[in-house]
This record gives sequence, C-alpha cells and structure tokens, in this order.
Amino acid sequence: MQKSVKPIRTGEEYIQSLRGRDLKVYLFGELVKEPVDHPIIRPSINAVAKTYDLAVEEEDLSAKSSVTGKLVNRFLHIAESAQDVVLQNKMQRKLGQLTGTCFQRCVGMDALNSLHSTTFEMDEKHGTKYHKRLLEFIKMVQYENLVIGGAMTDVKGDRSKGPTEQEDPDLFVHIVDRDDKGVYISGAKAHQTGCVNSHWMIVMPAMRLTEKDKDYAIVGCIPADAPGITYIYGRQSCDTRSMEPGDMDQGNSQFSGQEAMVIFDRAFIPNELIFMDGEYEFASMLIERFTCYHRRSYVCKTGVGDVLIGAAASIADYNGVPNVSHIKDKLVEMTHLNETIYGTGIASSYQSHKMKSGVWQNDDMLANVCKHNVTRFPYQIGRFAQDIAGGLMVTLPSEAEFRSPETGPLLKKYLKGRKGVDVENKMRILRLIENMTMGRNAVGYLTESMHGAGSPQAQRIQIARQMQLGYKKQLAKDLAKVQEEGDETLENSDYFKRVFKLDNSNE
Amino acid sequence: MQKSVKPIRTGEEYIQSLRGRDLKVYLFGELVKEPVDHPIIRPSINAVAKTYDLAVEEEDLSAKSSVTGKLVNRFLHIAESAQDVVLQNKMQRKLGQLTGTCFQRCVGMDALNSLHSTTFEMDEKHGTKYHKRLLEFIKMVQYENLVIGGAMTDVKGDRSKGPTEQEDPDLFVHIVDRDDKGVYISGAKAHQTGCVNSHWMIVMPAMRLTEKDKDYAIVGCIPADAPGITYIYGRQSCDTRSMEPGDMDQGNSQFSGQEAMVIFDRAFIPNELIFMDGEYEFASMLIERFTCYHRRSYVCKTGVGDVLIGAAASIADYNGVPNVSHIKDKLVEMTHLNETIYGTGIASSYQSHKMKSGVWQNDDMLANVCKHNVTRFPYQIGRFAQDIAGGLMVTLPSEAEFRSPETGPLLKKYLKGRKGVDVENKMRILRLIENMTMGRNAVGYLTESMHGAGSPQAQRIQIARQMQLGYKKQLAKDLAKVQEEGDETLENSDYFKRVFKLDNSNE
Amino acid sequence: MQKSVKPIRTGEEYIQSLRGRDLKVYLFGELVKEPVDHPIIRPSINAVAKTYDLAVEEEDLSAKSSVTGKLVNRFLHIAESAQDVVLQNKMQRKLGQLTGTCFQRCVGMDALNSLHSTTFEMDEKHGTKYHKRLLEFIKMVQYENLVIGGAMTDVKGDRSKGPTEQEDPDLFVHIVDRDDKGVYISGAKAHQTGCVNSHWMIVMPAMRLTEKDKDYAIVGCIPADAPGITYIYGRQSCDTRSMEPGDMDQGNSQFSGQEAMVIFDRAFIPNELIFMDGEYEFASMLIERFTCYHRRSYVCKTGVGDVLIGAAASIADYNGVPNVSHIKDKLVEMTHLNETIYGTGIASSYQSHKMKSGVWQNDDMLANVCKHNVTRFPYQIGRFAQDIAGGLMVTLPSEAEFRSPETGPLLKKYLKGRKGVDVENKMRILRLIENMTMGRNAVGYLTESMHGAGSPQAQRIQIARQMQLGYKKQLAKDLAKVQEEGDETLENSDYFKRVFKLDNSNE
Amino acid sequence: MQKSVKPIRTGEEYIQSLRGRDLKVYLFGELVKEPVDHPIIRPSINAVAKTYDLAVEEEDLSAKSSVTGKLVNRFLHIAESAQDVVLQNKMQRKLGQLTGTCFQRCVGMDALNSLHSTTFEMDEKHGTKYHKRLLEFIKMVQYENLVIGGAMTDVKGDRSKGPTEQEDPDLFVHIVDRDDKGVYISGAKAHQTGCVNSHWMIVMPAMRLTEKDKDYAIVGCIPADAPGITYIYGRQSCDTRSMEPGDMDQGNSQFSGQEAMVIFDRAFIPNELIFMDGEYEFASMLIERFTCYHRRSYVCKTGVGDVLIGAAASIADYNGVPNVSHIKDKLVEMTHLNETIYGTGIASSYQSHKMKSGVWQNDDMLANVCKHNVTRFPYQIGRFAQDIAGGLMVTLPSEAEFRSPETGPLLKKYLKGRKGVDVENKMRILRLIENMTMGRNAVGYLTESMHGAGSPQAQRIQIARQMQLGYKKQLAKDLAKVQEEGDETLENSDYFKRVFKLDNSNE
Repeated sequence: MQKSVKPIRTGEEYIQSLRGRDLKVYLFGELVKEPVDHPIIRPSINAVAKTYDLAVEEEDLSAKSSVTGKLVNRFLHIAESAQDVVLQNKMQRKLGQLTGTCFQRCVGMDALNSLHSTTFEMDEKHGTKYHKRLLEFIKMVQYENLVIGGAMTDVKGDRSKGPTEQEDPDLFVHIVDRDDKGVYISGAKAHQTGCVNSHWMIVMPAMRLTEKDKDYAIVGCIPADAPGITYIYGRQSCDTRSMEPGDMDQGNSQFSGQEAMVIFDRAFIPNELIFMDGEYEFASMLIERFTCYHRRSYVCKTGVGDVLIGAAASIADYNGVPNVSHIKDKLVEMTHLNETIYGTGIASSYQSHKMKSGVWQNDDMLANVCKHNVTRFPYQIGRFAQDIAGGLMVTLPSEAEFRSPETGPLLKKYLKGRKGVDVENKMRILRLIENMTMGRNAVGYLTESMHGAGSPQAQRIQIARQMQLGYKKQLAKDLAKVQEEGDETLENSDYFKRVFKLDNSNE
Repeated sequence: MQKSVKPIRTGEEYIQSLRGRDLKVYLFGELVKEPVDHPIIRPSINAVAKTYDLAVEEEDLSAKSSVTGKLVNRFLHIAESAQDVVLQNKMQRKLGQLTGTCFQRCVGMDALNSLHSTTFEMDEKHGTKYHKRLLEFIKMVQYENLVIGGAMTDVKGDRSKGPTEQEDPDLFVHIVDRDDKGVYISGAKAHQTGCVNSHWMIVMPAMRLTEKDKDYAIVGCIPADAPGITYIYGRQSCDTRSMEPGDMDQGNSQFSGQEAMVIFDRAFIPNELIFMDGEYEFASMLIERFTCYHRRSYVCKTGVGDVLIGAAASIADYNGVPNVSHIKDKLVEMTHLNETIYGTGIASSYQSHKMKSGVWQNDDMLANVCKHNVTRFPYQIGRFAQDIAGGLMVTLPSEAEFRSPETGPLLKKYLKGRKGVDVENKMRILRLIENMTMGRNAVGYLTESMHGAGSPQAQRIQIARQMQLGYKKQLAKDLAKVQEEGDETLENSDYFKRVFKLDNSNE
Repeated sequence: MQKSVKPIRTGEEYIQSLRGRDLKVYLFGELVKEPVDHPIIRPSINAVAKTYDLAVEEEDLSAKSSVTGKLVNRFLHIAESAQDVVLQNKMQRKLGQLTGTCFQRCVGMDALNSLHSTTFEMDEKHGTKYHKRLLEFIKMVQYENLVIGGAMTDVKGDRSKGPTEQEDPDLFVHIVDRDDKGVYISGAKAHQTGCVNSHWMIVMPAMRLTEKDKDYAIVGCIPADAPGITYIYGRQSCDTRSMEPGDMDQGNSQFSGQEAMVIFDRAFIPNELIFMDGEYEFASMLIERFTCYHRRSYVCKTGVGDVLIGAAASIADYNGVPNVSHIKDKLVEMTHLNETIYGTGIASSYQSHKMKSGVWQNDDMLANVCKHNVTRFPYQIGRFAQDIAGGLMVTLPSEAEFRSPETGPLLKKYLKGRKGVDVENKMRILRLIENMTMGRNAVGYLTESMHGAGSPQAQRIQIARQMQLGYKKQLAKDLAKVQEEGDETLENSDYFKRVFKLDNSNE
Repeated sequence: MQKSVKPIRTGEEYIQSLRGRDLKVYLFGELVKEPVDHPIIRPSINAVAKTYDLAVEEEDLSAKSSVTGKLVNRFLHIAESAQDVVLQNKMQRKLGQLTGTCFQRCVGMDALNSLHSTTFEMDEKHGTKYHKRLLEFIKMVQYENLVIGGAMTDVKGDRSKGPTEQEDPDLFVHIVDRDDKGVYISGAKAHQTGCVNSHWMIVMPAMRLTEKDKDYAIVGCIPADAPGITYIYGRQSCDTRSMEPGDMDQGNSQFSGQEAMVIFDRAFIPNELIFMDGEYEFASMLIERFTCYHRRSYVCKTGVGDVLIGAAASIADYNGVPNVSHIKDKLVEMTHLNETIYGTGIASSYQSHKMKSGVWQNDDMLANVCKHNVTRFPYQIGRFAQDIAGGLMVTLPSEAEFRSPETGPLLKKYLKGRKGVDVENKMRILRLIENMTMGRNAVGYLTESMHGAGSPQAQRIQIARQMQLGYKKQLAKDLAKVQEEGDETLENSDYFKRVFKLDNSNE
C-alpha cells in the first residue's frame, strides 16, 4: 500500500520519500506544486527529518520492538515498560532542543500506543479483530520506518451540539458509504499537525459518542496522498519571511511546525486498516488514553524552552550584562519553570502501569498536571526572554538593511554591543527570540502549548475527575475528629492507588 | 521653520502635512519614496491622524492653554492642574480603544511638560533663557497643531560604560561642532516611536551625566526632515501582510505603531531651539520627570486591552460559549487586570503636584507602579485572549484561501460556528487577536509595554528609591516596642508626604 | 438615648465612654465583666481609640460637615466632594500604619454615606421620611462624636436558600413584632467588626430581597447596649497570648481587631431610628452602595502593609543583609503590590460622582478591582515577609525563656545577629511578623482581606456586571472591520461614562 | 550506648522508649519534667509514633537492608536503587496525609544516606575509617529501630561572616577539646526538627568550610540525652491551645511538629561515632548531598496538602456549595499545584544515580525545583483554603462557648449550615483549616515549607549552578546560525547527562 519498501533511514531519505506524491495542498489560494520545495513548508519537513537523523546519530534512542523483533524508531515503538514511556519524553526533549519547534511525530506515536490497548479491549468485548489488524499495520510501518500523522480534532461547528445535531452532518468526520472492501468518509479535521509531512494518517473521533453517533465511531488508516483528501495550509505569524531572501529575519530559518486543515471527501479506508467501526462506547476510552499519552508528550516544549533560555542568556552576554543579578535571577526562574514541566512529565511517564494488551500507559493525573503547566509556563518563559532581550527585538531593521551598502555600515556602527560581539550574531539571536515569542515558532511554543492535546479547561476537567475529593475529605475528617455517617471513599478514580503502588516494575 | 502655517485640524490635513517632505527613510534596504503611501508605514500614520480626528469629534478633549490663551490639542498642552494630568490618561485610553495600537504622540506631550519645569529650574540656577525659548516653541506648535516626537534612547553600545568611555563617541548623541547659529550633533537614537510621522523631534539625553559628558548634555528641537537625519525603519512581526492584497490577514489593517532608528550626522539645532547645552547635572532631573509622566502614559494600553477583551468576548460569542463559566471568569480576570493598570495610572495623575514653573507633575511612585503593572498584565491578558480564541487563531488559512473558488467554499462550510455567525467575521476577529498577541500590534501591546519608558528593572530601581524603608521600619518598631537609637526617618523620598497631603487643589 | 452628651475628644475619653455599659459579652464560655479591662478585648478598643487621638493630633483630618456646620471626625462625615472620598482613604492608610490592624470604624462611615443617598431615593419614591430621620441621627453622632458599628452579614444557614425558605426564620435578622413605638427584631449577625466597641449599631440587610422578604427589609439604629443583644466573641489565632505576662510574644501587644457574633432577641428599634421598613426593593441598592464604599475602604490594608514591609526591612537589617539583591528585590515587590492596592483605591475614590442626595459615591468598578487586589496581594506580601524573616520567626522560644535566668543568657548569646543588634529587638520584630502573618493581626491582614466586604467571588460578579462587554466587542469589531447587525452597546453599566467624564468637580 | 535493646516496633513502644530520659528541655521558662506528658510536646511525639505504626500496618513500606540483611524501617534504610529513593517519597506523602504535619524523621534518613557516600569518598582520599564506623552505627539503629535527628543549622550570628570570624566562636558548633576517647563540642543549632523526640542526633556542619575552619569540620553521633545538651523549645502559633480543655479549638489535636534550639556545652562524641574530623573540604559535599535528598523529601507537604484540600472540600460541602463552579475550580487548582510538587519530587527521585559507595542519590536540579515549588504552592493552596472556608474560620467562638449552657444553644441555632450538617463538625473542619493556615501546623505547612532544607534563594543558587547556560546558548546559536569562536559547552554541571541517560537501572 506504501510505495517505499526499503526502510527510510536518514532525514534525507525521508525528504526524498515525500517527493512526487500527488498531494492536494493549498497555500495562499494556490495548489502547491511540490510541498517539499515550497519555502514555507520546507522548514516543517526539516523538523520531521531531524527525527530520522537523530535516530541515526544516537542509536540507543531506538527501541527493540517485540512486534517485529527489530530495532525501531521510538516514534513507532509500542511501550513495553515504564522506562520506555520515560524514554519517549527524553527523546522529545532532545528533539525540541535540536529543532526549536514541533517535530510533528508524537501524535502518531501516541495514537499507535493508545490504539494498542483500546483495540485489544474492543476485541475482548466484541470479538472483533482490530488488535491483530493494528499489529499488522505497526509491523509494516516499523519495517518501512514511516511517519504517521493523526487526524482527530473535528471542526465541530456549534460547540454546544453533538455530531448528529449539527445542521451539516459533515462537521464531524463520519462514514458516508461502505462496500465490501471498506468505508468512505467525509468531513474535516482542523489544525492537523504535520499532516502534509506524513505517509499515513490515523483518523480518530475526538469526542465521547453515543449510540446514535455510530457512523462517527470510525478509526482507520489512510495514506496521506489518498484520493479525496484536500489540505488547506494554515498561516503562521511571519510565515512569508521564509520566502524572503536571506536567513536572518526568520530567526530559525531551518525548522518550523506545520498545521493544516484536512478535508475528506468520500476518502476510502480498506477493511484491513479499520480499527473501530461503530463501537461508539470505546470512543471516549481511546480519546482518554490518547490524550493521556499526548498531554505528557508536551515535555518536548522543555527542549524548546532550553533553546529560548539559551537565546536569552546569549543576548544578555552580548549586551555585557550576564552577571547582573536581576538578569541571572530571570534565567534561574525560566529554568525553574521549564524543569517543573519536565519533572511533572517524567513523573507521569514513570508512574505508568501495564494494560491488558501489554502496552504501558502513563499516569493520567500527572499527564494533565504536566500539560496544564505547559499551558502556563512557556508564556512566562517567553515573557522573561522578551524582558532580557530588550526592545531592540521588535524594532530591529530587516536583514536587507543590514546587507545594504547605505544602511549596513550604519547598523554595524550603531548596533554594536560589548567589545568582541559581532552585530550580525546579535541580530540573529534577537530574531530567534522574536521567532519563538511572536513569530513562526511562537505558534508552537505558545499557542499550541495552550491548545494542543486539549485546551486548559480540558485538563482541569480531567484533574477534577481524578482528584478523589472523597478520599481527601476523609483524611481531613479523621484529623479533625469529625464523626459522620457515610463512606467518603467511594470514587471512580484510582490515582492514589497508583501513587502508593510500591512497585512499578510489573503491573 | 515649519512650512504649514495654517493650523492642522483633521487627520486628513495631518496626513497631507506629511507629504512631500524630503525624509530619508530606509525600509527593506531601499529609500522610501513617500512614506505616507507606503503600505507598511501608512497604518502608523493613520494612528496619529486619529489623535486629530478625535479632537475634532470630542471638542471637550481640547484644553485651554495659558501659553497661547487658545484651545489646543491636549497632546500639546502644558498641564495646569492635577485634573489636566488625569485627562491625559483618559484621552490615552480612548485613543487606545479607537486604534488598538500606539498612536505615538505621548512622547512629545511628556517631553514638553517635563522640559517646562526643568528649563525653569535650569534658568533659576544658571541664569539661562531656556524656559522662554521653550515657551516660544510651545506657542508655535500649539498654533500650528503639530506632532512632536522625542529622540531619547541612545544606542548605548557597551552597557557597562558611560558615553565618553565607549570606543566610538557616537554611541550616544552628542555635539560634534558648534558655530554662532547653533550646534551640530551626531549619533543615533534607537527604537524611536513615531519619528517618521512627526513634524519635530526633541532630542534629549537618556542617562545621568557627569561633568566630562558635557557634550552629551544637549536638548533641542529639530525638524523631522532636517538635513543629516537618516531613518532606518524597524521590522514588526507580520509587517509584510500590510503589502498583501485584502485586509483580513492583517487583523487590524488600519492602524499600527512605528519605531525606527534615527541617525544624526552633523544635524543642526539653532540656538533658539536649544533647551539644554552642557548643564549635565540637569540631565537626570529631566529624565526622571519625563519618565515619571511617560510611565503613567502607558494607561493607553488599557484602551488597547479593552479592544482585546472585546475581541475575546466576540470570539466566545461566535463559538457559542459566552456563558460558560470558565470563559466568563477569564473575561472578568482580563478586565480586573486591565482596570488595575488604569487605576494605578489615574492615581498617579491625580496625586500630581505643582512645580515651580507652574506645570503639574504626577506622582513618581505610582507612575512606576503603573508602568510596572503594564510590563506584566498585558502578557496575561494576551494569554487569556489566546486561551479563549482557541487554536484556530494560529492555524487559520489565509484570506487568499477564503477568496479562492476552490477552497473558499470549503472554509465557509467547515469553519462555521454557531448558527447565524458569518465565517468571515469569525476569521476577522481571530486575526485581530493574532495581530494583538503575535502580530504587528503585539509589538506595541506586549514588547513595548515591557520596554517602553524603561524596562521593568528601571521601575524597580525607581520604586526602591521612593519606598521610604526608614519611615516604614519606624512604624514597625513603634508597634513592636523596639527601643533603639538612630533616626530612621531621614530619607530623600517624599512619597508619604504626597500620600498624606490633604489637598491637591493647589501646591 | 446615649448617655454621654459632651462630645468625646480623645482616645482616653472614648475608652471611658465604654465603661459601665451593661453589655452581654461572652468569651471562653463566661460573661465578661468589663470588656474594657479584658486583656483579649482591650487591644481592639485601643485601635478604635487611635481614631480619636489621630483626629486630635492632625486636625486637618477632620471635615467641615454641612449637616451640623461643624468640624467632625471624618468617620462621621458625609462626603461632599470627590476629594472628601479620597481623604477617607488617606486617613485609612494612616491609621493602618499606626495600629497595624483593623480600627473598626469604617463600616459605620460607609453605612452612613450609603444610607444618605438610599434613604433620599426611598423617600422620593415612597414619600417616606427616612432621609430626615437619618440626618437627625447623623447630627447627634457628629455632635457627640460616637462610634457607629454596622450589623449586616446574616448567619445565612443554607446558602442555597433565601431568608423565608430557611427552616429557621431567624437565620436572617427580621422584624418579629411591632408596636406604635417601633419594631422588635430577632436573628444573628456573624463576624461583626468592632461591635462591642461601638456606641451604636446600624442594622442592615445583607442580600437582595423580594416581596415575600418584607419583614427582612429593616434598617435601623440600636444602641450597642440595648436589651436583647448578646455578643459571642470570636477567637483569633494566638489570642490568649494577650493574657500571658510580658508583651513580646504578642508581637503587637497594643492593637488588634475584633469580631463577634451579635444575637438579637426581640431587640427594639424606635420609629425615629428606622431608615427602611419593608421597602425590600431598596435592599440591593443599599447593599451595592455600601459595598462600593466599603470595598475601597480596604485601602487601610496598605497602611498595615507598610508596617509589614517595615518589619521585613528591619529584620533584614538586623540579619546584616539589607543590601543583598534578592532581599531588596523582595522589598520592592512588596511595595509595588501594596501601592497597586492603594492606587486602585484612590482611583475609585477620585472617580466619584454626586448622588441625588448630595453625597458623593465612589466608582464601583474600581472599588471592586481594589478589593479584589486586597484579596490577593496581602497574602503575597505576607509570604515575602516570611521569606525575609527566616525560619526563626516560627521556632523562636517564648519571652519567658528570654527572661529566665537559666535560658535567657543562652538566648542572648546564641540569637545574636550582626554587631550592635539587641537580641530582644530582633525577637520583637520577628514576633510582629508572626503576629501579622499567622497571629492575631493575620486575621485582619489576611483572612479579613479575603472575606471582609465580600469574598473574592462577590467582586468578580460585580466586575462582570460593570465590564461592558458589548461596548468592548464593538471596539474590536470596528477595528477588525466586522459588519454585523445588532447594537452591541446597550448595557446597564455606565463605567465608561465615568472613565471618560471630563470633569469630576461637579455631578 | 542506648538503653533499649529489643527493637521498637509500635508507636506505643516508641513513646515508652522516650520516657524517663534525663533530657534538659525548657518551655515557658521552666524545665519540663517529662516531655512525653507535656500537652504541648505530646502531639509532636504522636506524629513520630505514626511512622512506627504505619510500618506495622503496611509491611511493604519496610525495606530489605543489605547492611543488616533484615527488613528495616525505610527511615533507616540506605537506598539501593532509584526505586528505593522513589519509595521514600511515597511513604512521606502517606505520612503527611495521616498526620497533617511534619513527622520529623526525614532528616535522619537523609543524613544517613548522604553520609554513606561522603564517608566512603573521604576514606578513599584520606585512608580514614569513617564509612565502616557509619555502617556499624547504621546496623545498630536498624536493629533497634531508633529515631535519628539531625543537628545542622548553626545559629550563625553575623551572616556576612564565617565561623572563625565571629566575635563568639560558639556561634558555629565546633570542637573545643579532645582526648583519646573522643571530642567535646560546644555551640548551638537553631530550629532543630524533632530533636527532643529523637534517640540520637547526628551533628553536621551547615556551610562550606576552609582550612582555618578545621575545628568546625566535625560530624558525629550523640545520644539525645547526653550530658551537656540543653533544649529550648520553640513557640508555635496557637501552641497553648493544646493546654486548654477540649480538642476542637486545636484543629488537629493529635499531631504537630516540633522545633527547638539545641545547645551543646562540651558535649562528648566518642571516636567510634565520629564520621568527619577536620576534613573541611568534604563539608560542602556532605551538605550538598544532604540537601539534595532533603529538598525532595518535602514531597511530604503534598500529603499535608491532601488534607487541606480535603478540609476545603468538606467545608464547601457543609456550606451546600460543593458544585458551585468557582469553588470546584479552586479545588482543581489546589490539586494541580499539589501534584506539581509531587511530580517534580518523584522525577528527582526517579532520576537517581548510583554513587561510589553503592547508595543512590537523587537528581540535584529536580530536587531544587521540587523544593522551590514547595516554597510557593502551599501558600497558594492555603490561600485558596481560606477563600473556600469563608470568614467564619477566623471569627468562630471558642469550644468553651460551644459547650456552655448559655451560648452553646445559640451557636447550634445560628451556625447551622445546610440540612443534615452537624454544627460541631463544621466547627471542627474550620478549626482544622485555621490550624493548617494560621495555627500550629501552619508553621510546618507554610513557614517550614519556605525555609526548611534551605530558603528559596538557596535553591535558586543551586539551580543556577546546574542550569548549563553554555549548553543552552550553543543550542540557540546553532539554530540562529551564529558563527562564533569559543566552546560554550564546558561547564561543571552534568544535569543534561542525567536527563538524557537512557537507563537508570544501573549506574
């Protein structure tokens, strides 16, 4: 089903694998001829390519998969221990450091892992064959080393209404037809990360479904270049700077994220790639497990945060003030916030437990706590970076001025900092900070940190479900010597069981 | 000295007055032919034009000036009462509301007012004639209703060194020559707000000076189009969207701020427009009085904040969730923060006192407190706006997609919100939020809020100078019955005298 | 009706005026013989006494009253200008500085002022005579210079139910009987500030009432020692230290606040002291105007904050670290937060407007913003004070140890700080910080800052009512060029009218 | 050397083991006859006793020690794996939940573990026998199951001076004499947690030492009742409520913390219990390793936080408002903050590595991040608890009023909440919240969270040392394409090595 059969190894091979596909991608009102060569799209492809190159450079990052018995890229690996889950985080932080942006490959990893346990439990209940199908698919992508995107967030229309209550049934992706080979789906998924850069997309529902939503309970795989798919590329702040000559004003000219709207118009999913088909009651299980993984995957932002802290420290250095106490204190605070995100993510991964299917699932409460910190701290870190950078970050003339024979010499004369600092380097670092706090990569570092994997309120709801107030009330009442009828400790969360589990080396 | 002699009345007349000047403005490596017609520059001119139009629409905003005896634009008025100072704030808020950006005229207002008292006290000590010269200048600009820019922040070079210790003496603006007509200055001023849109610039020093810095102790007026001045225009996030067709992607297509680097190469200031020439010991007085006015002028950001709160409320409405409790709660918090800025600004203005020259000066402690809140709260308000806006704000396709016959209908189908909401309007509001939190006007609403009129640390230093710890320690010791020698209450701030002054209707 | 006819002038005379009353006050299960002499109660009486002494020391604080034509204590004055309202704040800050606690006299001031306008408008609608009666009462208390307490917050029972829906009708104070002389009321008011120290109490409803709540719509005055009134004294953290020998461990041995539960059992209010009797629809007007004044009265906490900042600065000094950068930075932050409260309060008072009755009412939005800051910043200031104080604040041995011949010399040897610092003084300052952040005066500085004049959520509701989202949405839509039907600007708040009013020297 | 030879098993046996010792404890100026029976001291003993009872109830909490080969209380266990370090945290959270206070046994655990590696490395360099001696001591205390306190924080005198520069050499504990049996020490240690409740104390230096400080480089063990030791008990907020009749007003009548000043006057340490004697250059190593463990031991506060969250939820329930959105939202925020502390602590423990001696040491950066969060979040959680509790928490009459025949019925009538709620239970929960936010256990939950194991600034210094700005600057420069000489990545922290270590199952 996929053209390439020799596994992709390097970033360069990955980029080659994307060429010549018949993708229908629209950008600025025009059909893009070859996305790989489009200056606005290319940096996002480079970021994915880095996930290949890193695996080559640091072989230990790969994992031995029980599915295929071979070493596979960890983005395609099914977690076989708590440590495997932790190692995802470490890889994410490293890639954040190397790209300073979203490298787009976590959705696929988290989708495969959450489907592993969910299909197993669906089969258990319904006698279906989804789990085996999924394993076949995993084998193939592990062998060929492909990029898997997810397609989850429906465009939703009126948010106070469910899928079948909308005026237009297509506002949620659903089955519009089926034959004995498979199903046909229509609808649209909004802000899909890295979709144009994927080989396959996993289509999944994005909300709790009821019996009347059966046609919306569809999970399946589809090649990114399948007929019936249209991509409309999202604009990012300062995106057209990638089309300008030079590389300074872009800040981070090599890497960026990508989000596009994906529209399905009777796109086909063959039976052997369907992993849910009508089992609506499993939609919320899949979503919860996926978001549980994915909210902790935002540990990647600590790698991006490392870059921004480094940029702020560099500009302080260029300005000759690296040892001024308030500057140092702000760098400490940025680090403290960044590591707090990291710590809560690692704790969630470490506090994993084994599911029936054998895959390991991270801790739900701590995953939400991690992501909730991600919705806050990057904004604070970004603000500190702007504080340290100084106003020049937003009043700097363009690279063209710097290169111009009239104005270039003036800038070199007047933008001089402390002795020994090259004006161009100073401008480059300022543009990087602009890129990360207002420009292309602010999209990923700030706004996506806010809304990706669920907006802040989604985490609060999930924390509320897990917080075991009954258990805690009983603690308080015991200490206050309150005598009362009624058993406080009945509740449907088992967070404290996980907290007080003495051993996480097995289930 | 100024060509127009009939006073400028309307915004349109103001724009006409800018045409045909021989300004040397560089942008993207090229000399700009006519700034008024440059699509990137024009929105900043429109913002200044609004200060004229508002004065026409709301005549009460004008003030009766004792200098000329006529009604003048408040931006050119010398404050004759605490209420006059308060009214500056109210006008600033209103203009922030109407433009959603920086309207660039406060620096001139604050410079004229601080020079009023400083020149008076210089003359008192040195027997100079600066105050009279200033009054003549004020008369002229009041009659002609001109825009006055300031030129204060030197490029500074190595920040650990003073003007004369720099390798290149030009890193601070200074007198390089003089004849019996006046002086010639060289150097550069960084990130000058609205300079290209001004008729005159007031050149001022930006740091405390010592005896050996005499040549740097120069204050004077110079026409924006004087020979020897070069402007290098600053880039803003998303600035080139103003050059694209359409007006949606710009968010706020009509208004923006402006900052440029101004380079003086032997630019001439005639004697009658010199207001300080070597009286280095008055530099810090002038700067402190100017920043005291100017830090409280940032009340303008509450007007901009009103727009952003309105945009957030609008998108909540379009999404069908205006009454969801967490949304409403965030709008309340945004309002609370915005009004806290306003309150501290108004209190500073209200707690003004009369200077020897007759002008009223606002409260220094509270001005710094106001600005310090401005360096924090807009970032929080912006973050809340992004929270309410949802991820679509950064993944929205371009206006070109919306207008395209292929993708336009898809967007209209799939970006539909609650019934009755026009997709274009939803996109427009999202683009406005992007504009204010990541785009062109984020420069003014966020980064300039951080650094304009002094970075956060500058306010902390000023608060430290005013905080009268001796007075407060004595309060604590009295209550704790501490018996000790030594008079705690000797200190050089008189903040509490102002706090406990019973009447501010006169000095 | 009041025994003293010669006006009270000094604190000492005030204390004498409280003696010999037949108050029924319970504390620790016993009837208190003479509250004035009870060591736990006395510090709260001293705090009220300070409001008299200050008026003697600083005569300017008094106000010329149009009601009596004489100079009166500002706590009894009806505000006749915006400046009068501002001056309340200044007096409040000063008294906070001098007592480090709640001086309990603001409720009466704010009640008289809000009744002034409300009775006027009731009479206008109903043809009643409440306003005249009120003026008579004001005359009397101004002549005799008395302390007026309020009795507002009902005990409320089940908070999800109104007065008449409670199982027990007494859970809100109401009329239980009436004759031609007056009415008899029963019920209880919780946590009444300074009630035992008042000469009179003004009984008022505390929630919006409906027609069936007519018997609860009672406002009237009653002497604190009237038959049928029982006081149950509230416990404060560390209250019994006031009964121990010595004065060190109390931190602030001289001053404290006071709150008690007041129970009315058929207490009588004569007709001439009734200011509302059944006009239920005016209950919410009265409450809103009262809380509007009262929320801004919390500017007093900035005076208390000054003491705590002073205490923190003193201990830093004793520890030899006053110039360490992080210590200084924390003192600056404490000051910044404290002055932010002050600024928002002053702005609310300054932005007052004249009511129909002639009294001036402060700005509602800004009053709520001020109080909302009060529910946050004292906690932060307190935390910084504990940070600077060091752990010794909570591990310090008792004064008895310090005075003991065995342990005293050990403490003097081992608690020594930098040279020249007396160990006793160091202990005294640490105890003062304990007092203000955990002890008796933490009740007033922290918890009362949270809940007094309405808990945080009450301010958020009021801010929501005032925030004019329609107006702000229109601003955003205009800038974003949104074309839409519907007039956004219809709303029942007129906050922006007050913001943009050009003159507050008259109505 | 220790009287008891049969191991202590239960809390009751532990309490018995404390009786009859000849401790010299002063409280309120008097020598305490039997601390076990003193009502103020007893709750702190109960808290330690709980560490025994929990080990009996949950046998899994015990650890198999390689030192003795038997199951031992984890407080006496030397960590043999990362999981062992994690399990300390889990036990700490559980005990925080069960006692609502500080159970005082972590200092000993952290001291033994940090001495394990430090003595090993001292021996390696100096050929000393400290490690063997330590193992003997550990064997003994593991066999007998004793409580080990630490004695670290010197009283310090003038903080700008080192041990030998003080006017009085005793301001840091030091050797004043020695003979062939051992050494004699004098000096004082401030705010020592649980010292009176310990069987043994480990004396350790508290600051980096230099060659001239050799006499201060002393580490050794001493029985709590050794001659020459005097304890002066610290006062806690509301401590004397423990001496009042009844148990309501205490809030948590059963448990509290303990801190006292310990004064050594020629106290003797025998040679076989000396673990450092003059090796001054190892002082900072010991301190850094100890604080590294100990800062993460503050995860105990999340257990205390659970109680406070439970108390807040209970009072919301009693008030009939558990489902009001802002109440629920505050409970979610409290939980989020509490779990953020937990997550950072667990991550630090999990990211442990094996030391040369075989003990496992947790991650330094994350330990400091954990503790730094502890200095902030409990204050916020406490503030939210007060918000939810309402003002009654600080205005509640005493238990005596509740029991009195006159006032008891009035309180039962008027403090009624929603139907079915017992007034006494409501009062008990309010008193518990008071206890934890202002009373005895606020000392541990707030102020000790601030200062224990080092004040906030100490963590910031340690974070600064670990933050590898060079590494991060290089990341930024690579992305910004900055070409520069100089290797940024040389630095003495290896945090990122630990972050990117792929396996923590062995060294």
